[in-house]
Amino acid sequence: MKLLSPVAVSLLAVFPHVSSVKACGNNGVDIYKDITCSSTQRTEDLLSRMSWTDKVKQLGGIRQILGEDVSFNKTKFEIFNEAQNGNIGYGNQFNPALPALTLVNELRENQSASGLGIPYVLVSDSINGIYLFNGTLFPSTLAMASSFNVPLYGSAITSIREECRAIGINWVLSPELDVVTDPRYGRVGETYGEDPYLNGEFGLKYVQTMQEKDENGFMKVAATIKHFVYGWETGGVNTAHQYGGLNHIYNDMLPPYIKIINEANPASLMASYASVDRVPMSANKFMLQRVLRDDLGFEGIIMSDAGALVDLSTEFKIASTSQDAAILAVKAGMQMELSPGVSSATQTLVNVTGDSELTALVSNATRQIIELKFNLGLFDLPLPSISNALKILRAPAHLEAARNISRESIVLLQNDGTLPLKQNKTKTSLKVAVLGPYASIIDPGSYAAHSTSDKTHGNSLLQSLQTKFGSENILHEPGVDFLDRTNTTGISQAVSAAKSAGLAIVNIGSLSVYSSDPLDDKRTDGEMYTHADLGFPGLQQELLDAVLDSGVPTILVLSGGQAFVLNNSTLRANAILHTFLAGEYTGDSVVEILIGKVNPSGKLPISLPQANGAFPVAYNWLPSDNHGGNFGDEIYGSSAWQFPAIPITPPMAFGFGLSYTGFNMTEFQAEESEIKSEKAFKVSIDVTNVGDVTGKEVVQLYFSQEWSTIELPLKRLIRFEKVELRPGQTKTVTFVIPQKEMGYYVNMEWMMEKGDYTFYIGSSSKSVDLQERTVTIT
Amino acid sequence: MKLLSPVAVSLLAVFPHVSSVKACGNNGVDIYKDITCSSTQRTEDLLSRMSWTDKVKQLGGIRQILGEDVSFNKTKFEIFNEAQNGNIGYGNQFNPALPALTLVNELRENQSASGLGIPYVLVSDSINGIYLFNGTLFPSTLAMASSFNVPLYGSAITSIREECRAIGINWVLSPELDVVTDPRYGRVGETYGEDPYLNGEFGLKYVQTMQEKDENGFMKVAATIKHFVYGWETGGVNTAHQYGGLNHIYNDMLPPYIKIINEANPASLMASYASVDRVPMSANKFMLQRVLRDDLGFEGIIMSDAGALVDLSTEFKIASTSQDAAILAVKAGMQMELSPGVSSATQTLVNVTGDSELTALVSNATRQIIELKFNLGLFDLPLPSISNALKILRAPAHLEAARNISRESIVLLQNDGTLPLKQNKTKTSLKVAVLGPYASIIDPGSYAAHSTSDKTHGNSLLQSLQTKFGSENILHEPGVDFLDRTNTTGISQAVSAAKSAGLAIVNIGSLSVYSSDPLDDKRTDGEMYTHADLGFPGLQQELLDAVLDSGVPTILVLSGGQAFVLNNSTLRANAILHTFLAGEYTGDSVVEILIGKVNPSGKLPISLPQANGAFPVAYNWLPSDNHGGNFGDEIYGSSAWQFPAIPITPPMAFGFGLSYTGFNMTEFQAEESEIKSEKAFKVSIDVTNVGDVTGKEVVQLYFSQEWSTIELPLKRLIRFEKVELRPGQTKTVTFVIPQKEMGYYVNMEWMMEKGDYTFYIGSSSKSVDLQERTVTIT
Repeated sequence: MKLLSPVAVSLLAVFPHVSSVKACGNNGVDIYKDITCSSTQRTEDLLSRMSWTDKVKQLGGIRQILGEDVSFNKTKFEIFNEAQNGNIGYGNQFNPALPALTLVNELRENQSASGLGIPYVLVSDSINGIYLFNGTLFPSTLAMASSFNVPLYGSAITSIREECRAIGINWVLSPELDVVTDPRYGRVGETYGEDPYLNGEFGLKYVQTMQEKDENGFMKVAATIKHFVYGWETGGVNTAHQYGGLNHIYNDMLPPYIKIINEANPASLMASYASVDRVPMSANKFMLQRVLRDDLGFEGIIMSDAGALVDLSTEFKIASTSQDAAILAVKAGMQMELSPGVSSATQTLVNVTGDSELTALVSNATRQIIELKFNLGLFDLPLPSISNALKILRAPAHLEAARNISRESIVLLQNDGTLPLKQNKTKTSLKVAVLGPYASIIDPGSYAAHSTSDKTHGNSLLQSLQTKFGSENILHEPGVDFLDRTNTTGISQAVSAAKSAGLAIVNIGSLSVYSSDPLDDKRTDGEMYTHADLGFPGLQQELLDAVLDSGVPTILVLSGGQAFVLNNSTLRANAILHTFLAGEYTGDSVVEILIGKVNPSGKLPISLPQANGAFPVAYNWLPSDNHGGNFGDEIYGSSAWQFPAIPITPPMAFGFGLSYTGFNMTEFQAEESEIKSEKAFKVSIDVTNVGDVTGKEVVQLYFSQEWSTIELPLKRLIRFEKVELRPGQTKTVTFVIPQKEMGYYVNMEWMMEKGDYTFYIGSSSKSVDLQERTVTIT
Repeated sequence: MKLLSPVAVSLLAVFPHVSSVKACGNNGVDIYKDITCSSTQRTEDLLSRMSWTDKVKQLGGIRQILGEDVSFNKTKFEIFNEAQNGNIGYGNQFNPALPALTLVNELRENQSASGLGIPYVLVSDSINGIYLFNGTLFPSTLAMASSFNVPLYGSAITSIREECRAIGINWVLSPELDVVTDPRYGRVGETYGEDPYLNGEFGLKYVQTMQEKDENGFMKVAATIKHFVYGWETGGVNTAHQYGGLNHIYNDMLPPYIKIINEANPASLMASYASVDRVPMSANKFMLQRVLRDDLGFEGIIMSDAGALVDLSTEFKIASTSQDAAILAVKAGMQMELSPGVSSATQTLVNVTGDSELTALVSNATRQIIELKFNLGLFDLPLPSISNALKILRAPAHLEAARNISRESIVLLQNDGTLPLKQNKTKTSLKVAVLGPYASIIDPGSYAAHSTSDKTHGNSLLQSLQTKFGSENILHEPGVDFLDRTNTTGISQAVSAAKSAGLAIVNIGSLSVYSSDPLDDKRTDGEMYTHADLGFPGLQQELLDAVLDSGVPTILVLSGGQAFVLNNSTLRANAILHTFLAGEYTGDSVVEILIGKVNPSGKLPISLPQANGAFPVAYNWLPSDNHGGNFGDEIYGSSAWQFPAIPITPPMAFGFGLSYTGFNMTEFQAEESEIKSEKAFKVSIDVTNVGDVTGKEVVQLYFSQEWSTIELPLKRLIRFEKVELRPGQTKTVTFVIPQKEMGYYVNMEWMMEKGDYTFYIGSSSKSVDLQERTVTIT
């Protein structure tokens, strides 16, 4: 006789309808309703009761329930609900959380009370926080990656997770593991940047945090690793084709997937919109079966991106109808379809009969979806309450987490000593001109539930400065519009303000907002927005140039989840900060950095190119990409080898970021060691704060190998750690790296070679910032 | 008993040492010297006499015999000659042909008189003509491709071939079949542009023309198809890595190789410098054996690019020594090494013993090299004479061929009616300011044997204008330098000249010269030069803007083997011509076009992007690359979908080019037909010259298919034909396309599908210039 699980015991308290605790199957209810039975037992029981139509319906969902202003089209909902009702989603992210929750709770109650009572699972994007108003607005993923602080990121994700759960979200469509090397791509702000290892570390923390078990043993929130696969150099276009080649895919794109699948068992994975070697991922059997299932051992649910199955016929032209598309996709391995607001392709499968392969695949997909619902507690746990949501949303701990990671996300790119401002202790003596269209808004990110017109929470840079220094000391002139190129009249006013104040803060960048935002028509960043030009939109460069021409000391504050080309004029700024999209505390954090209350510690997770077209620029380039072969790492050619002549390694490379203090690193040690009976290298270095203020440094460890079977990058990040040091304080940073980790993939096989390897350690990926030491694997 | 071949009979007259004609082997000489024996018999006989060292030496060569000023380092030559002497090359291309020929003839005589008397084969690049002074300077490959006139190209290549033979060149390192889609690539000018079909048609004509048999049945010149494989989007870097994925490689890069291997049996192939999916091509067994030999059926010699075997250890780091590199390469399929001026890697193989696989591969490589030498007549034919060279170099027919294709290579990109100049019949009335640094030189191409300081042949645009209109009517001001950005003083002089003349011709661009050229330090185009910026180098844009600002009617003449971004200021020009690199008749041809003596008929073989970073821009893009999926072919978005907002199809797209007359195309017919008992489509269209002057139009036929197994380009070029029409004249252009040609590759297999196909016919690749008709393959 099977003993009761602790889960079942604890649930008895919650569910009084279970009158007594007997073994699974002996409790007088259907097995799938019997909390004493395992998820697997309950799933199989339920599956046996489901018709073909029931199963097909689970593959689809209704992810656009709400329009603007909490509008709800009941007729439309009911039509969709008849055909595609495995999952639901809130829809428009510009809706207040509590009314939305009330409505959706009602829909969920109705559903659970009908038929077999299979609950919906509530699915949502989750980039900067919850996907409704009234939550905490966190920094973008790229900004949080800039912190190079994984534990701090964990606390941010814990907060996001709790806010998600408070509004009933049990399944999020993150993390985004796209290793992005094309600065033209509009979604760079949603990613962890250009390095596979950094991606893996942050992504792993995300999945582990989201999928934590609750006190009943239920998974708190299911995570979705995506977009399998996307991100590499193809013009920066959103759904652009990706190249094949398994050495490229395994070494450049898959490392974060492999790490997270092995270490965190993610509940689901989303196939990308892209084609890989011309085969759309939604129908790419080789990638979904041979690579993902057989080789990587992924066991979760494979879902489509929004509308991607329909795209197989309408865009890729590899299927002539939605039904053909659905059959093709399911047979390639697709198990769940996202089709927000439109008819799903998979619903057409109800009419397909006599295809035993398809039947088995749909049944298995349904099995996995149902089992996940059991694992999430959806059959057993109560719906989220308004009272709990009121307590959880914007809880002090969440605000604190957002504030902390915002402070560490901002990267100081240049500083001639102007920062921190010397006037920081004599508040009234500081007068400053705040210029640029971004000064008066928060640039939230296109997946953020924050309207630029919302002033109820979060401070713009202008507001933060006014709060800190008093409105009377702040001269504000936007100078120019975000995008408009016709109206130049504000520039001279801005210059006058700068001269009058004697100090200018110019806040310019690229706008990433949701399509319902009042500034949407000025948007230049985020999903579907491609940057052929990496300069500043509109007349912002002209504004900056004019202010710099005036000779007034100028601090440039950049906004946007993207790289910018900083031309020679721009580089005249006395100090430059890139905020990426640092959430609702962006303004406050910038002010704290300006006055030295916070010492900046962000590092670039993407390299900034030096000209439009001067990429690939990622630090981990291949030896054959050295622009001809005759030049070394840092500089190639003095004149016209490349037009314009620019160094191959950009000054603002991956891992780079300045501090207000100085750090000294001693010569480092790299010695043979062991970990878990495996050969390893122990790499140690002493880091000392040699400046006057407390600060944080990111110690970065890269490596290369002398000879390999295929061409490998010049160097690869393998460890990093952020350490805080008081003035004069020294800490030893030690990394232990199993030797078997220092390999690479050839034809899908992990390859480890004997021979010489070089470790590089330092404060950025640039050779000038690194020391090196050669070791040998025997 | 074997009868004498006609070759042997005719050779008897040439070689009196063969005293009588008996069957092979009965002529009292070694079989390999017996002209009555077949090449194969002679090869086997010679091979049996060769030591391991003899064989290894054939794999290498000395391709840099001459320094500047016909200098010859005998000691160095003899050292190399001991170790790597299968082939030789002239070296520095800035040397006079006749002294060079005299010297090399002497070396060749010595070699043939020594040991087994195995002759060198003289190998040379061949882009714009011979690789020494005193030949005819033809347009660049890209310029000749712009003619879209394959028969005319054939006459140019015939001329180049005869000039090559006249100086003893029997093996050329062309054609360059790189299908180029990255406008940043410096070698675009050496290629046929962005379309696989256009590449195949021109490349085939090149190989067939070069490899024609002479009256003795000897191959005139052996051709080398290259760079296997290279050309696709990777930052425009010369040796940059290429992506794998067989659907990409087979559909995008291999079509010209497949056509030429099937139809012209090219003597050799050069592997590219690049790695493909991280495996350097020089050691890429999969690509060289499985793809090239087994699947494509290539039977010629596989050679390396210059120094590429040594690169395996020094650059790619996949071999630790030159010997390791040579073994790796030979085992991957490499048979011959180019290593101009440096020690070859293969010479180290003399010390490798006991490796039977290697021994067999080297022997077979030697066999193929020796047999080619027999097939080229190198054992039998006399060395080229000075007297013959004097007759052949710059023969009138060659000059005429160069002039004719130059006329058709120039593309008219924009014209508001300013061209042709109305003054063309009253010579003295025309006064013109000729501005820009390119007006006084010929921009030759970096593989051209032409110094910008050489005024002995070829006219600069300035000279051609002076000749036509009289020096007194030409005001010449360079205005700015090629590259310098400091000296602006010439701009106002240029503007004054423009105002004074009332008409300006601004000749600007990008410089592509050989490294010995006096202007080399101002070079911005050609091999190893990457264009991160596709604007005009130096202050040329500033010059152009100033002239345009003056309001003087302006004709812009572009120079350079590359795409330029034509910004809104540039597009104010009244007329724009792109000459690419149109050879020694560039100036004359431009003048003929200016005055209407020649009606321009060139078409773009590459699409011009609209912003730095706004690519891929090639017309044959994939449906998933449509910048998000919500937009049609021509225009996407009005504001900021892409920053800057630009149409996805550039106005100056592949196949586009204007004429001085108008062409009307009737509705076209597409009907089922047959060719050689195979199902086909016959596509016919009537083209009428509806203007006032004779002109040439390129009728272009594209196609697409409705449904396919993998993602395919929106359209693909399948036929083109250039027709000349007098005013009012109508011609019917008919294409017969076997249905089996309308397929594509999936996993290395040719795939033909039933269903609907659409033909598009018209004057460019742009939808607005095309009519369409749907047909069905049943």
